[in-house]
Amino acid sequence: MSGKGILSVAEENAFGKADLIPAVVQHWETGKVLMLGYMTREAYEMTQRTGKVTFFSRSRKKIWVKGETSGNGLDVMDIRWDCDQDTILVLAKPLGPTCHTGSISCFDGSGLQEKKPPFDVWSELQATVRERKTGDPDISYTASLLQSDVSAVLKKLSEESFEVSLATLVESRDRQLSEWADLFFHIAVALEKTGVSWGEVMEILRKRQGTGGLVEKKGRKKPGGKS
Amino acid sequence: MSGKGILSVAEENAFGKADLIPAVVQHWETGKVLMLGYMTREAYEMTQRTGKVTFFSRSRKKIWVKGETSGNGLDVMDIRWDCDQDTILVLAKPLGPTCHTGSISCFDGSGLQEKKPPFDVWSELQATVRERKTGDPDISYTASLLQSDVSAVLKKLSEESFEVSLATLVESRDRQLSEWADLFFHIAVALEKTGVSWGEVMEILRKRQGTGGLVEKKGRKKPGGKS
Repeated sequence: MSGKGILSVAEENAFGKADLIPAVVQHWETGKVLMLGYMTREAYEMTQRTGKVTFFSRSRKKIWVKGETSGNGLDVMDIRWDCDQDTILVLAKPLGPTCHTGSISCFDGSGLQEKKPPFDVWSELQATVRERKTGDPDISYTASLLQSDVSAVLKKLSEESFEVSLATLVESRDRQLSEWADLFFHIAVALEKTGVSWGEVMEILRKRQGTGGLVEKKGRKKPGGKS
Repeated sequence: MSGKGILSVAEENAFGKADLIPAVVQHWETGKVLMLGYMTREAYEMTQRTGKVTFFSRSRKKIWVKGETSGNGLDVMDIRWDCDQDTILVLAKPLGPTCHTGSISCFDGSGLQEKKPPFDVWSELQATVRERKTGDPDISYTASLLQSDVSAVLKKLSEESFEVSLATLVESRDRQLSEWADLFFHIAVALEKTGVSWGEVMEILRKRQGTGGLVEKKGRKKPGGKS
């Protein structure tokens, strides 16, 4: 954030057209939509200046710093406006469950139970693996892996990669999917075991894209070769 | 969706309190927030009944089926209400760029260029790899990999897993992160090459969670062993 609380011309225009602008808050790392609130010009400036998501409460008719009583605030990572400048998207890191019900997201309580979007499955898998860290190794395979040597976890990573290859070359599509799922599960375990976060890895990939895209890859691995 | 267009008591109450309810549309697979529109009771019922996201246009004061002229409609995958029943979250599969500017999302035009959330990096990496499929193998490493034998792609997968292990055991944290990034890049290439989508793999993992969580894993791999 600029930290100055000075609005751009476009932002001035946006608040000139409407007193209250809806602000969607999305989890920076997982992509989960956490809540929707409303910002006045003052709330928006405070959000920018403090880096803490701040709304205007329509029911209480006052400025409301998310998390000021619960502690479950939202640290701003990026603010985006939509194409016609009447909606704000805030990408944020939540300091706890965003919903007053104790759920991660205010949208967790409804929807079809039998469906889950891929980005949610992946982040929930990582969260589940993290929880199992202190689990009973006698009843949880994940806990037993996490509590074994790092070499055992890495061995599984290589085994699962090999099993993906094998399934791809000589087995059915269902077997391929199953082996890919095994690989991603063991990747989640290996990341947790070695203290590397998926976000950090994606940040490396983003930086590579930023410096000439995938061409950079070749520069490091095959000097003089193909890009 | 129920396909019946009959509102629940909670939904009836929601539309009893407000004529227009903001509806956030999120990409089912990538998690990208695509746009925010407003639904009347009629628009909501149409969205439910047809499975096509339908709004009420505040400027034109009429029902508006997203994509009816552009073709870039939104197929509903799931509908969720927030905790206080005054906002809708629609998870959808877009049939083209959602924004009238031609961007994937209406929020693509602003924000900090030097930051990108992990879920965006991952989906953009997959999209970039897909684009390179028909690229020039002499100037793109990705294109050369994708146009080589599947065994070459699988070989890279195993090599990169091994390199993650090596970096974890004897190299620096920076080297570890770099090898993890290499692994995820080659996973994206292998998925593309073998025609397996990340969404399909996550769906397998979701089903495993649904049938007793990670315990199921053990059931398949270590009968009689730890769960």
